[in-house]
Amino acid sequence: MASITGNTLINAEKVNGTNVYNLQGEKLGTVEDIVIDKVSGQAIYAVMSFGGFLGIGDKHHPLPWKTLKYDTAKEGYVVDLDKDMLKDAPTYDDNESFAWTPDYGRRVDKYYDVPTYWT
Amino acid sequence: MASITGNTLINAEKVNGTNVYNLQGEKLGTVEDIVIDKVSGQAIYAVMSFGGFLGIGDKHHPLPWKTLKYDTAKEGYVVDLDKDMLKDAPTYDDNESFAWTPDYGRRVDKYYDVPTYWT
Repeated sequence: MASITGNTLINAEKVNGTNVYNLQGEKLGTVEDIVIDKVSGQAIYAVMSFGGFLGIGDKHHPLPWKTLKYDTAKEGYVVDLDKDMLKDAPTYDDNESFAWTPDYGRRVDKYYDVPTYWT
Repeated sequence: MASITGNTLINAEKVNGTNVYNLQGEKLGTVEDIVIDKVSGQAIYAVMSFGGFLGIGDKHHPLPWKTLKYDTAKEGYVVDLDKDMLKDAPTYDDNESFAWTPDYGRRVDKYYDVPTYWT
């Protein structure tokens, strides 16, 4: 498979597993998928897995892309979020028949206080 | 797994297999991966597979994202490229130990006549 040197390009497939840290440098979890806008090619959400670190089990945490900053030294993303905020955040289970809807998207965007993607 | 309704969101993992058409509506091939900038979250290249349609076998064709337009009616991407142009385009093999470099990226961008991503 292709590898990438220079700049910060990455195959979307390989973003899975990228570490996510808080401002204190503690590892919170990993990115498990990116949700993009097919038209613009812009990442809108990162779906995080916190792997039980917060006692949340297999929940999927969608975070607005704007809440993530890539740290080239750490080779991972940093989020300015405390654990309590993540515990109460919108999630979905593996077993749910989950679908992104404008209502759900707006709820995520509002929870993290970012301008909404949804019109 | 999650599905998405409304707008044009898609899990990056699921972009693989999206059809690519020319302006005449002929199917040229499929997207096999998206290459994104980890910092901005912007798709920079789509890696296409033409599945032997052009007699090119298993070559991977990176196209600048800007050359693709998403067609919601077709549920696929449309490119304004003729087959001769694709035949001579930069590609890489499965068997090569391929790596993205600024030089290679600039060559792709120049071939398709788009402003280069590479500084």
